[in-house]
This record gives sequence, C-alpha cells and structure tokens, in this order.
Amino acid sequence: MTDKKMDMGLLAEATRGGRVESRHYGRAVVVDTAGRLVWSCGDAESLLFPRSTVKAFLALELVASGAADRLKLGDDALALSCASHGGEEAHTRLAASMLARVGRDETALECGAHWPSYMPAAGQWMAQGHTAPCCLHNTCSGKHAGMVCLSCDQGIDPTGYVDPEHEIQKRVTASLEQVIGVPHRAENRGMDGCSLPTYAVPYRALAQGLARFGTGDGLSDAYAEGAARLRRAVAAHPYMVAGTGRYDTAIMERFGERAFVKMGAEGIMVAALPEEGLGIVVKAEDGGARAAELALTALLKRFGQKSLCHSGEDEAFLDRWSARKQLNWRGREVGTLRSVIR
Amino acid sequence: MTDKKMDMGLLAEATRGGRVESRHYGRAVVVDTAGRLVWSCGDAESLLFPRSTVKAFLALELVASGAADRLKLGDDALALSCASHGGEEAHTRLAASMLARVGRDETALECGAHWPSYMPAAGQWMAQGHTAPCCLHNTCSGKHAGMVCLSCDQGIDPTGYVDPEHEIQKRVTASLEQVIGVPHRAENRGMDGCSLPTYAVPYRALAQGLARFGTGDGLSDAYAEGAARLRRAVAAHPYMVAGTGRYDTAIMERFGERAFVKMGAEGIMVAALPEEGLGIVVKAEDGGARAAELALTALLKRFGQKSLCHSGEDEAFLDRWSARKQLNWRGREVGTLRSVIR
Repeated sequence: MTDKKMDMGLLAEATRGGRVESRHYGRAVVVDTAGRLVWSCGDAESLLFPRSTVKAFLALELVASGAADRLKLGDDALALSCASHGGEEAHTRLAASMLARVGRDETALECGAHWPSYMPAAGQWMAQGHTAPCCLHNTCSGKHAGMVCLSCDQGIDPTGYVDPEHEIQKRVTASLEQVIGVPHRAENRGMDGCSLPTYAVPYRALAQGLARFGTGDGLSDAYAEGAARLRRAVAAHPYMVAGTGRYDTAIMERFGERAFVKMGAEGIMVAALPEEGLGIVVKAEDGGARAAELALTALLKRFGQKSLCHSGEDEAFLDRWSARKQLNWRGREVGTLRSVIR
Repeated sequence: MTDKKMDMGLLAEATRGGRVESRHYGRAVVVDTAGRLVWSCGDAESLLFPRSTVKAFLALELVASGAADRLKLGDDALALSCASHGGEEAHTRLAASMLARVGRDETALECGAHWPSYMPAAGQWMAQGHTAPCCLHNTCSGKHAGMVCLSCDQGIDPTGYVDPEHEIQKRVTASLEQVIGVPHRAENRGMDGCSLPTYAVPYRALAQGLARFGTGDGLSDAYAEGAARLRRAVAAHPYMVAGTGRYDTAIMERFGERAFVKMGAEGIMVAALPEEGLGIVVKAEDGGARAAELALTALLKRFGQKSLCHSGEDEAFLDRWSARKQLNWRGREVGTLRSVIR
C-alpha cells in the first residue's frame, strides 16, 4: 500500500492477541489557509464527498444573514445546526424549539426519520410507547432546522428546501463555494443520507476551507465573523455537536476553541486548528469511522503540538484517543485500535 | 491494490452520485475438502482470527457427545448454539431454556452483557424498565449456553469454561483442530469479544474446514453425523442463527441445507456449499461487514451455480444481495453497494 500507484497509505490498525487483525487504508491532508499542502498521505487532489463535515460551512448564512439574531437562536442552537447528533432528548428538544421560532414543527423537516444512534435514547422513546422514530431523531435534524429557520426568516417558503434548485439551497451552496473555493455543480453532486446535496471536492480544497473557517482568512467579513461565532458556539456546546460518548464532543470538550472537529459519514474526520492556521481532512477508504478518529487524533497531536499540547495531560489525552485498548464485554483487554499514520 | 506485493484484492465498493465513495480490499478463498485452492484473492496462507465463524464447529461436541440428545435440545437450540444472534426475545428465551435444562440460569454465562444489536429488542427491554442488558442478550449467548450444557452433561463444573485450560474448552478446541486441521495453541491465540479464545489460522485451512463441515469428508463418523445434524438444524431455524434483517438468516432461509453461511466479527463471512464440496472464506481487511456480505454473495453465485441457482429467481436473489441500492432516510436512491470481486 506504500506503492506510488496505490495513492493511499496505512491509517490505522486493530490488533488482537498480539497480531494485526484488521487494517485501514486511506488519505489524509494537512493544508494551510493559502491552500499549501503541509503534509499528505495519498493524492490530495482526488475527490471526496465531504458529507456532514461541512455542516458548519452550511450554517454560515444563518448567522451572516442576521437570521440567527433576529430569531434569537442561542449558541446551543448554532452548535446543533453544525451537528451530527445522537438523537438524545436534549438534541431533539432543541431542534423542535428552533422550528418553533418560525412557527413550524418537525413536519417541516425533509431529512427523513431514523432511530437515534445513541441507543438509550431510542429505548427511552420506545418506552414512551412509540414504535417509530421521528424526523427530529435524524442525526441531521439540527442542520435541517437551521435551514428551515433561515428560509422562513428570509420570507421564503421552506417547502422543498433540500432541492438543489431551492433558493435556500442555492444560498448555502454559495457559502460552500466561498469557503472551499471550488465549483459546486450538478456534475459533482451526490445526495446525502438526509436528502441534501453533497458535492465531491478535492481533499486539499476541503482542508483549505477548514483552515479558512478556523481563521477567517480568505472569507468575506460577514463570513469571517460568522465562522468565529460558530466556532465559539460549538466550543461552548460540544455536546450539541455529537453527544454522549462521541469523539467530536470529547475532543472539543477538552480543547474548546483551539480545535474544531467534525465527523462525516463513510469514514471522514476533519479539523480546523485556528491557532496553527491549518485544516485537516482524513478519510478511511473503506468508510470506517474508527480509523478516521484514530488517524485524525495522531495528526492533531503532530500538527497541533503548539496550540493543543499545553501539558503532558493534553498529550496523554490525545495518545489515549489515537491508541485505544480494545476491551471485551467483561472488560478484559483483547487488543488495540491504533493510528499507524507515519 | 492489484500489485503482487499487496496480497489483497478489491472486494466491494460504495458509490454515490455516480462516483465511487468508498472501497473495501481484502482476501477471499474457495477451497475443496482436500484443501485444494479452487480460487483465491490474496494470500491463502496468511492468518486470520475466525471469530464467530467457527461456532458450528464448536457445537460439534455438544451433538457428538450425546449431550444434546440426553438434554433433549431441539434443532432450534442447536441452531442457537451456532449463532451470532440479535438479542431478540426469541433468542434470549431459548438461551435461557437451554440453561434451564441443566438447572442453570444466565449467571452461569461468562460472555458478558451488551445491548441487543437488534435495536427494537433493546427498546423493548428498556420499555420493561431495565436500564442495562443481561448476558442472554450477548450475541454469543447461545454458544455459551451450549458449552454450559455440555459441561454439566459431562459432570464437569462449568465455572471458568471460557478459560483455554478448562476441560470443556480443551474438548471444543480439539474439535476445531479436527475440522480445521491445524494446531490451536497459545502461540496463535487471541481472546474474542465474548471472552472465549479465538485461534489465528490460515484462510485456506478455515475454508477446508468449512468444506469438511459441509460434506463430512475427513471428519470422524461422529463428527460427520454431528455436522449433518447441525446443518439440518440451522437450515430449519435460520432465524435462530442471526435474526431479523440479517444476511446469514436471509441466505439460509432461501437456500436451506444447500448453503451454510456464518458471519464473524471484523468483516468475515464464510460459507459451506455441501453439494459442491466447497468452503469459502472472505475477510475485508478493514473489518467491514458489508464488504464481506457483498463479496461472499458474488462467490456463492459463481461457485454455487449448480446447487444454488435452480432458477432465474435464485440468481436474481443473489444479485440483489451482491449489488444493493443504497436508499436514504426518505427512500431515495443515493448510490450502490456492490461486490467488485473478479
């Protein structure tokens, strides 16, 4: 896999009984605000669908348009707009309250319904007598609620807001183009699990977008201010961005505004390191989330050394997330999950 | 990845918006009862931990010793002994009834507890006021109940039956050695999620073991009879081997005794094709279950053509399982999951 033709590298591996049981290959890039490749593993110009990793970029218009202020959306709601949440009660309640600000309810959501990924939340919902989940449980309901809020604030009927030709979708797609700096058109479009479009972009461009989001460099004044506000919001409410036991939440709970971290489906993890002026993108070729988490953590330690590792405890924290003991159901250690990024 | 050095091949891929979004590499072998390599992708002599794919081999002693008959275990219980089940009520009730045959209950199980993988079962348990799962929900509880039954029938205290040095563990490990034909020793031992040992063996040997299990060739008379009985049991009760919505169950519901199929953790799928005299092993290098299912289905179609594909409907059934439409939460088609094994 180190062969030039392979265009990928080894990201992470799982061991058991002293042997490597599984291996994850993939690509990773570290890029500055000017788009310079600081480090890479695999072809930085190949394309990926960013999926949920651009939710914060999609939320910029909600803030920059003034809608968030007019609707008195708190930092918790802004964080939820950037979230892939676990469908816990606090997530669904907050999404519902966002919709209520514009006189709507969950019937306005076009994301579809699925069971909460946080299992106890699903059990709690069932224990209340429900036999099916609702749209508020969808991991993307905060992003969708934010788009419904933006649409209503702008006097636009939100019906069909997931359609690429809907006015709101055009505006948030323009946000993506400004931040990521590449065209978002029908040719590079796919559909996400929540029915919104997702656009294939180069790893390098996405990472540059993250560096810009982390610093404001290269963004309009309104978007630079909006990005700063969203970064403060997620740092203040990391639980709203993911939830109980989740990687994104754990990392941002520890590092606050020093690291913005976001997962995306199919094995993607991204980060912005504002003080370093860097953006990072990792994707496991196989779509495995665990590999992306392990590898991103190793890159956070290496490229965020100055801004993140203020103490031995900070380093130990990152080491624990980049090389985790695998315990079995009786708590016995059976192996390791570890980054092997070079 | 087709490079000789790579020692793996492309098994499956996920597409979105007409592009390949994720790729799964791995190894796969098709072997006859004599151990001859009929087909392979990757190094057939490299080692893998078979994990749950050898549960039926581990159940041979329960049948061959006469314990199953003395305890009046039905075919459903034998199927559950070979299962990685979803923790549905029928699974846990049957595991409990197996333990009751030897005057025990779930406190005899040493597998540990985890929430049912079949989410509605977890919700149902919570709706009954429980806040934690029990050992019966463990996906391996049927296998463990079978070992407790065997131990008690043989007049051996089952306490510590998961220990490699426990008499019952020695006997079932001897079963593995007979079927797979390679030593199972401390040097190649790891610990499984359910605390039982799992032994690293070559792909080719595991596949030969499956061919033997499917035909009885190369096994003692008692084990050949035991294998036939277990194959009839899982074919009669495929729901007990996995559960609602699961791949193993769907394949065996369709093909009955013509195909024995079993999943294992970390991306493994195996099959025995009794009428073809073949065993098949697939492992996704990254541990992804979806790739193993897609690739195994393609191999079932190719190498089980004679015994499985009696009609165009049989072929269409396998085609659906080897190239699945990916639908999003509103039922819209967003891409494909497909085997690309050559």
